[in-house]
Amino acid sequence: MAVNKDFLYVMYMGGPDSIQAIEPFLYNLFTDRDIIDFGIGKFPQKIVAKIISKVRSKKVAPQYERLGGGSPQLPILKSLLGKVSDLYLKRYDTELETAIGMCYYHPFIKDTVKFLQNGNYNNIFVMTMYPQYSYTTSGACFSRFFNEIKINPPKGSFKVIPYWYSNESYNSAIANRISAATHKLNAEISDCHILFSAHSLPYYTLEKGDPYTIHLKEQVNLLVDRLKPKSFSISFQSKAGRMRWLEPSTKDEIDRLIRDNYRNVIVCPISFVSDHIETIIEIDEEYIDYARKHGLNIVRSDSLNDSEDFVMSIIDIMVN
Amino acid sequence: MAVNKDFLYVMYMGGPDSIQAIEPFLYNLFTDRDIIDFGIGKFPQKIVAKIISKVRSKKVAPQYERLGGGSPQLPILKSLLGKVSDLYLKRYDTELETAIGMCYYHPFIKDTVKFLQNGNYNNIFVMTMYPQYSYTTSGACFSRFFNEIKINPPKGSFKVIPYWYSNESYNSAIANRISAATHKLNAEISDCHILFSAHSLPYYTLEKGDPYTIHLKEQVNLLVDRLKPKSFSISFQSKAGRMRWLEPSTKDEIDRLIRDNYRNVIVCPISFVSDHIETIIEIDEEYIDYARKHGLNIVRSDSLNDSEDFVMSIIDIMVN
Repeated sequence: MAVNKDFLYVMYMGGPDSIQAIEPFLYNLFTDRDIIDFGIGKFPQKIVAKIISKVRSKKVAPQYERLGGGSPQLPILKSLLGKVSDLYLKRYDTELETAIGMCYYHPFIKDTVKFLQNGNYNNIFVMTMYPQYSYTTSGACFSRFFNEIKINPPKGSFKVIPYWYSNESYNSAIANRISAATHKLNAEISDCHILFSAHSLPYYTLEKGDPYTIHLKEQVNLLVDRLKPKSFSISFQSKAGRMRWLEPSTKDEIDRLIRDNYRNVIVCPISFVSDHIETIIEIDEEYIDYARKHGLNIVRSDSLNDSEDFVMSIIDIMVN
Repeated sequence: MAVNKDFLYVMYMGGPDSIQAIEPFLYNLFTDRDIIDFGIGKFPQKIVAKIISKVRSKKVAPQYERLGGGSPQLPILKSLLGKVSDLYLKRYDTELETAIGMCYYHPFIKDTVKFLQNGNYNNIFVMTMYPQYSYTTSGACFSRFFNEIKINPPKGSFKVIPYWYSNESYNSAIANRISAATHKLNAEISDCHILFSAHSLPYYTLEKGDPYTIHLKEQVNLLVDRLKPKSFSISFQSKAGRMRWLEPSTKDEIDRLIRDNYRNVIVCPISFVSDHIETIIEIDEEYIDYARKHGLNIVRSDSLNDSEDFVMSIIDIMVN
């Protein structure tokens, strides 16, 4: 029974990997009533989801075209996990197998959990690519995971990492990206405003007790204590639909910074570990271009993607 | 953020703690369609469950009367966990808080998970009192647990122990009970048959892929390799209802042992870690009395209950 292999299972909601994949991806997302409940029953929600995903996929297709035809998330994550395995082997002399499971597109959690169930591993780590916990993101991933293993659990015990926003090594990697951004602005951090832009959520998630905003605030405090910028604020981007979402929006917050004559601004995409439409199109092309035209000296801090220091952070999150 | 407290959360299906509790306990059990699906829809199942629990509670009430008015599980488990905490503090100089969560009676999982969510613990262990995994027992417990923590997970990462039938220290404790039983029989183990009696399950659980019988067989092999009895067999007790359940039944297997003139028999209640109606009434009063009348030299090996070696096993299961 001696085994010398570990396993890392990483989940996230997923994104379309091609233009054709946008519509089925959105349909899968909009029919998940645990996350978005139109309050009209299961079957009517499927019909509405069909219509929305058809309309919306046409709308976002040009954005994905500009990103090379699909979301960059999956190739970045694959590269990251390859590097994590390499470093893990070097550091612990132990093979680390990895698998990715996504909620709303291939590779689906239900299809990849079997790699975990069929193997014989010494240590099993289960985490998501969301540093802060929300039941709409990590909760949706873990819910699928536990449902899949309900009849046949993996061999042996396993470690569940529901969130990791407070990990020191990960925050140190972000702090380094923000410091690098000050050079692009040609400014000292003590003269900069950091705008932490997080993915928004419907406001009612707070009433359900979602810890997302608490985690965001705690993490921002850790970063601000470390970096000591002139000032900082948190805003929420990528709202969809007409319900009330978390406020202020990143667009409104940038308008405030322009109005109040802020000078040097670093936008840190705090809830994203890799590049997405949300960072490359929304922040870079929409907000930053707009803010520059209005006189702000503004840049975005780089995403962690598959960088060496993020690779080390992932291992630190796993083993500590 | 320095913490020096760990947490152990232990679940099981639960049992009635008083005569009055038998009916609501059975009703909760029979309305859990994840476990028992009458195939008649949710509302009709509630009505049928109401009738069954009423009739059946009257039938089993005298058995619970003889056990002092309720199931001995909860007081035994409380005592066990108290001893686990004491030894854990002594061994690791770390406070170990514990909580019990049950599926079908107080303290319910939904009511006690909050102790885990509200605290700040360094290491969190989540396990059940079922050594072998079945989706009808541990699966039902974990399913409730993960559903409860979906919106608000515990603070930090945690270790899930889905089963622990192969733990050496635990099997060593069972082997010692079986060895002790040979003295009561006044026989050598090489002259004894060990009858491993496990709680039965409906046969269809196998078709769903339930690993219960695989775990049982693997554990029995570990024990037999260690003990080297003359012979051994596995049987299933406590069937309820008319569907096909796992076979052979313990009653049928005892009949076979009588018929084939076996001499010394030790019944090991392999799926039970503490005393229940199933061990004290069913095995001791029904099967063993019957078998003795038919000439078998037969005893039951003691349950682990809250014994010192089981306390050590639980800690070994947690930390290894």
